[in-house]
Amino acid sequence: MSDVRKAVVLLSGGLDSYTTAAIAREEGYEICTLTIKYGQTHANEIEASRRIRSSLNVSQYLELPVDLASIGGSSLTTNVLVPKDQDLDSSHIPTTYVPARNTVFLALALSWAEVLGARDLFIGVNALDYSGYPDCRPEFIKAFQALAGLATKVGVEGEVINVHAPLIKLNKAEIIRRGFEMNLDYGLTHSCYDPSDSGKPCGRCDSCRLRARGFKDAGKIDPIFC
Amino acid sequence: MSDVRKAVVLLSGGLDSYTTAAIAREEGYEICTLTIKYGQTHANEIEASRRIRSSLNVSQYLELPVDLASIGGSSLTTNVLVPKDQDLDSSHIPTTYVPARNTVFLALALSWAEVLGARDLFIGVNALDYSGYPDCRPEFIKAFQALAGLATKVGVEGEVINVHAPLIKLNKAEIIRRGFEMNLDYGLTHSCYDPSDSGKPCGRCDSCRLRARGFKDAGKIDPIFC
Repeated sequence: MSDVRKAVVLLSGGLDSYTTAAIAREEGYEICTLTIKYGQTHANEIEASRRIRSSLNVSQYLELPVDLASIGGSSLTTNVLVPKDQDLDSSHIPTTYVPARNTVFLALALSWAEVLGARDLFIGVNALDYSGYPDCRPEFIKAFQALAGLATKVGVEGEVINVHAPLIKLNKAEIIRRGFEMNLDYGLTHSCYDPSDSGKPCGRCDSCRLRARGFKDAGKIDPIFC
Repeated sequence: MSDVRKAVVLLSGGLDSYTTAAIAREEGYEICTLTIKYGQTHANEIEASRRIRSSLNVSQYLELPVDLASIGGSSLTTNVLVPKDQDLDSSHIPTTYVPARNTVFLALALSWAEVLGARDLFIGVNALDYSGYPDCRPEFIKAFQALAGLATKVGVEGEVINVHAPLIKLNKAEIIRRGFEMNLDYGLTHSCYDPSDSGKPCGRCDSCRLRARGFKDAGKIDPIFC
């Protein structure tokens, strides 16, 4: 039972996945958001994803717990310190890398898509203003799409699963401009890897700094500071 | 930090994954077993995986909950009835198919392998005596291996992640004979998709019938009935 208008959108709570979800909606998809509670050391991301979900008026959503903290290996799931004030244009992969995270996320999105009858997955990766994570690159997305056709019953039946990464060639400023064109409220989002207990962004982790540079280059004010 | 002797083995509690783990050990790997609690409607599989793990004296293990029951779409995770007395050689994919399950399982195995410094994953799929699941075929395994190199930090650094499926070209009788050669105790395993409350196999689901046919063709007695 196929419903070609449904798309599964991975929604984290950050501005990239929010923009991606809005693009999917603009393209005419009925969006079904999947938020993975993967053992993040703070809950702000999940809360942001709920605010975003409400604002987008999604047709279906799923919050799925997957305990990547038991696997460990990242500053985002363990008590290894989040690096601060790093060179944003370095090719070094920082400790905030969560091993194989996007493979796990897309696998779960694929599973849900098959149950929903959706043939389209959306993920907000981008390969320009990012932290060098391997699973944010176009070649990774292409390999996952090839896998998706072989991994599923619908794939065997000849249907194509499309993996969309509409931000992959945009820099952060371009993503932000795109969001402003769609009247998105980035005040709903959360980007910081290491917020204070009250949820205030640290301003010094890669994610905060890429966000700040993006707003500056886009000539916009970040509403989380308003 | 690479430890080439470590391998992550997906261990379900069935005879295929037990045989696979024993093969990995025989090949000289230090085996680290990963058992996914994916929301199976019964706990017998998990209990069997614990018995197997103890008998194999594994160096590390992880039991990881992933709530595929929230995603649904299968007789193994919902109250959709398990089909009985089906034609075992049909090309029809039955309702026991769990959408994208092996993609999810291998993604999690990949994540843990990267953290452990392991470069080898083992999965007990076979493409002869099985229920026609798409993610048990050689082309799926090959596509996942291609993805693994692109998805990970170690892959980007030029190291190869190997995905081993040593049973993929064996029929059930050959798998069982291989296990007897290694003195495996198949009395530890559980295969039935729809056991009674006391854990007794139904004898009529695909998994029970493939197992019975395998033991008969191998000329062996199934110890779970002794």
